[in-house]
Amino acid sequence: MTEPSAATTTDGASGSAPRLKDVAAAAGVSVKTVSNVVNGAEHVAQRTRARVQAAIDVLGYQPNATARRLRTGRSGMIALAFPELPSPYFAELAVEVIAAARRHRCTVLMDDTAGDPRAELRIASGLGDPMIDGVILSPLGLDRRELAARERQIPLVLLGEADFGPVCDHVHIDNVAAAYEATAHLVAGGRRRIAAIGWQDPSPRATAQQRMAGYRAALEAAGLRPEPALCPPVRAYVRPDGAAAMRRLLKLPARPDAVFCFNDLLALGALRAIHEAGLRVPEDIAVVGFDDVEESEYAIPSLTTVAPDKTGIAEAAVDALLHRIAVGDGEPGRLIQPGHRLVVRESSRRR
Amino acid sequence: MTEPSAATTTDGASGSAPRLKDVAAAAGVSVKTVSNVVNGAEHVAQRTRARVQAAIDVLGYQPNATARRLRTGRSGMIALAFPELPSPYFAELAVEVIAAARRHRCTVLMDDTAGDPRAELRIASGLGDPMIDGVILSPLGLDRRELAARERQIPLVLLGEADFGPVCDHVHIDNVAAAYEATAHLVAGGRRRIAAIGWQDPSPRATAQQRMAGYRAALEAAGLRPEPALCPPVRAYVRPDGAAAMRRLLKLPARPDAVFCFNDLLALGALRAIHEAGLRVPEDIAVVGFDDVEESEYAIPSLTTVAPDKTGIAEAAVDALLHRIAVGDGEPGRLIQPGHRLVVRESSRRR
Repeated sequence: MTEPSAATTTDGASGSAPRLKDVAAAAGVSVKTVSNVVNGAEHVAQRTRARVQAAIDVLGYQPNATARRLRTGRSGMIALAFPELPSPYFAELAVEVIAAARRHRCTVLMDDTAGDPRAELRIASGLGDPMIDGVILSPLGLDRRELAARERQIPLVLLGEADFGPVCDHVHIDNVAAAYEATAHLVAGGRRRIAAIGWQDPSPRATAQQRMAGYRAALEAAGLRPEPALCPPVRAYVRPDGAAAMRRLLKLPARPDAVFCFNDLLALGALRAIHEAGLRVPEDIAVVGFDDVEESEYAIPSLTTVAPDKTGIAEAAVDALLHRIAVGDGEPGRLIQPGHRLVVRESSRRR
Repeated sequence: MTEPSAATTTDGASGSAPRLKDVAAAAGVSVKTVSNVVNGAEHVAQRTRARVQAAIDVLGYQPNATARRLRTGRSGMIALAFPELPSPYFAELAVEVIAAARRHRCTVLMDDTAGDPRAELRIASGLGDPMIDGVILSPLGLDRRELAARERQIPLVLLGEADFGPVCDHVHIDNVAAAYEATAHLVAGGRRRIAAIGWQDPSPRATAQQRMAGYRAALEAAGLRPEPALCPPVRAYVRPDGAAAMRRLLKLPARPDAVFCFNDLLALGALRAIHEAGLRVPEDIAVVGFDDVEESEYAIPSLTTVAPDKTGIAEAAVDALLHRIAVGDGEPGRLIQPGHRLVVRESSRRR
């Protein structure tokens, strides 16, 4: 009995998707018995059930989504939608969400909304796909009224700063506190003309508003005066916009000696603009980013940045969504706030 | 009549998802008429049909996937699966696939397989979700036998180098030629000890094999001898592995004067290791990557790299998939080979 089951295990691990009959062979029971266990039948002996479950775990058997949904009313598929796929922050966060979902044997399907409110509304309604159990959405263009009017009220968890009130669960870090710490770190390093890259004009998003509030509060606490000229607006949080904003700052009569960028991509663009101007980081200008994407650790110089607890954010979002899927939408939405920390690297070393 | 339709257009553009009644108001017809047009009823006058279609186009009206599938047998949803989501190359390619699919009014759902053959087989079978019309898959762990045995034969297009024979359509650039050009560029710049980072030992993937073949051919054409010590193997195509391989190369008695990395992340890791060793790029060592991710343009120094035609790859994959969805799997699989070009930047400037 042990021999064939070991062989099946090896085969399963090598790649072919294990089927009911593989589980049956490994557990030494009939296919019908495995089917009974998988379908939650009550009359299977405890010992047999444990043996089948062990074989399922070893083989990594996963019933297909349609079968699973017919049986339990749920497919095990959740959708994850974010506004900027090329953003390494969202890519890294998505990897964490996928890992967290996998621990609950759920499959994640991702959708890039490009921040288009219509696309956000479609995904918030589950795309009309009855196979999708629930949705984790990082909204950019959607507003509160539109969200309330969505077509299908499937379980929904929001990521990111935008405030939608108690309409659903919401996961984000304390952005004001994080921006305060980043700016205070530059003050502590002896910097006095501290610029900020990330404001948006005329319609700053919630992220820009909260990080600007933290930046201003830290300056004021240090007795420094925020200057509009030191806060050039950007269109989007991407490398080219960071480089362009930095070039504007370098043309000021009184150049900044530090810059806090509202995400790492802006900071990486700023690093490049400073390099092209023949100036040195951190000797001439210190730079701090926000997100702690892997690229920042490898940048030259390596980038000081705010590291949100991405694993914590992903686990909180998946746990909240699975809870909603299990119990429904009766309870009011909760705000869940995972932690963050400042990672100090070469770009803000003390002079 | 013009006034209300203009107002509806503005409202649609501002974000709320347009519904049948918005289309009806904009076209100046009844909801029933719009429904008839959308559902392909034959008895609607040509002029009315054109007016409704124009309103649909202006408003960006999109019937939900379930309704669309009931009507046409297709949901307009396709799945895109790749093995390494945090890889900026896949993220940038996914953005192109999403854009190409959107031009055909299709929604893309993405799945990260992490290169796990079981996950690849599940997605190649459409995840058991009848709402998925077809799949674009970049396989890493799957083998030919496993692919042939997939559960549900839904339309499938493969991306990337792995060879699966004529079982389905396959899109990739000419990797051997591209690696040859990258290496020949270093030779033309006067480099003589040209290392390669990206070989895998003991099981090199197709990507490693093809890029290594192009590298060796270019060395041989220049009368240079490939040396195993100049080709340290890596585990995965990520920044830490590029940095570690570069550190090994820097310890050789005769240091290389150039290095061709099989992707940009390996090259960005190598740049960091060279910087940490106190050496200069390109003065001491020239570096060339592969993929042309945006990060490479902003790196310090900016990175010379092979740029695959990502838009061409995405359009070819979506076109091939939609063709398969329309006509079925009767025709044998085709190989489609979009172009590439070498983008020369600071990291390989002539000394």
